[in-house]
Amino acid sequence: VGESGTKDAILESARSRFAEYGYDGASIRGIAADAGVDPALVHHFFGTKEKLLVAAMRLPAVPSELLQDVVGSSTDRLSEMIVRTALGLWEVGARDTALALLRWAVTNEGAARMLREFLADTILRLVASVAEPTDAELRASLVASQIVGLGITRFILRIEPIASASVDQLAQAIGPTIQRYLTGNLREQSSNHSSIGIDWYGSEE
Amino acid sequence: VGESGTKDAILESARSRFAEYGYDGASIRGIAADAGVDPALVHHFFGTKEKLLVAAMRLPAVPSELLQDVVGSSTDRLSEMIVRTALGLWEVGARDTALALLRWAVTNEGAARMLREFLADTILRLVASVAEPTDAELRASLVASQIVGLGITRFILRIEPIASASVDQLAQAIGPTIQRYLTGNLREQSSNHSSIGIDWYGSEE
Repeated sequence: VGESGTKDAILESARSRFAEYGYDGASIRGIAADAGVDPALVHHFFGTKEKLLVAAMRLPAVPSELLQDVVGSSTDRLSEMIVRTALGLWEVGARDTALALLRWAVTNEGAARMLREFLADTILRLVASVAEPTDAELRASLVASQIVGLGITRFILRIEPIASASVDQLAQAIGPTIQRYLTGNLREQSSNHSSIGIDWYGSEE
Repeated sequence: VGESGTKDAILESARSRFAEYGYDGASIRGIAADAGVDPALVHHFFGTKEKLLVAAMRLPAVPSELLQDVVGSSTDRLSEMIVRTALGLWEVGARDTALALLRWAVTNEGAARMLREFLADTILRLVASVAEPTDAELRASLVASQIVGLGITRFILRIEPIASASVDQLAQAIGPTIQRYLTGNLREQSSNHSSIGIDWYGSEE
């Protein structure tokens, strides 16, 4: 087999190992052994384990690199940038990949574990690093919950009007949610929200 | 066939018709015809179209009835109640149903359409009715995006620490998001969030 045949064999082994052992448990060494090649060749072709998974899953970008750019940009609008980046990724053909990943994750517990560990090791860790240190991991997972839900309602369920809203509109509507999850008070009592401009229900307490 | 055989035939026809024509397009008349029974019998056994879908999908509750109770309860903590109700539903065995529905929706465009129309006609309409009238539909779909994302990250991807957080903790953390989507300003510029207590990044503008 030529170089492309070898690469395909490595990617195939990677998919099996990731699904069986999770992202943390799958080793480059094990993947190389399954493909019948030297681990150094895997590193040579694909670099890091993250990049190997990106290639194996045909993700449109390396999450940590992409997010590193976002995090490195103007922190003033970081929360809106996170929304915009996530929406942009989906738009550029990531929808099919995300659908395939999600399909896999909802039908295969091993795949769900792989996705969970991958998200934790790459995206969530980076998001936690820009969150307020208290409850940083909870903050990162709350951000993930809103971004994942946005993707699914807009692109898979296609619930209106979120499905056809402009990126600007969604960035404005959802940016403050991300911002609050990153740096706001997560333990406030609902009866005295500082965030509500309109006291629409009146105070009945 | 006896009564239970007839009911099963109706539920089977309902599943096919909902998947083929969507929730709006499937008619009780058509479902009855497929099952070889009179439409009146479908109404007699199952009541409304919503309840027929609830039975066909084995949902653990009738969404509009459940939410009607929530909406009718103390409006002071409505947003937290929405989070608690959604989490409670998942806990009591709805996880398998939700997984099955989600699996179906990500593998079958007809099923995605059915789910979208069902959500729009029942849950979203009710949520929109308690939202501020301006952008009420957008507000309801934003609420859906956060609730769907919460369910998927907590119960399917099982991302930590959201997966093991207490219901109280999540209600406090996510309630204000729901509240803002229902009644807050969705068009504010990110540079002057009224919702952020901690100016963690400093003002660079």
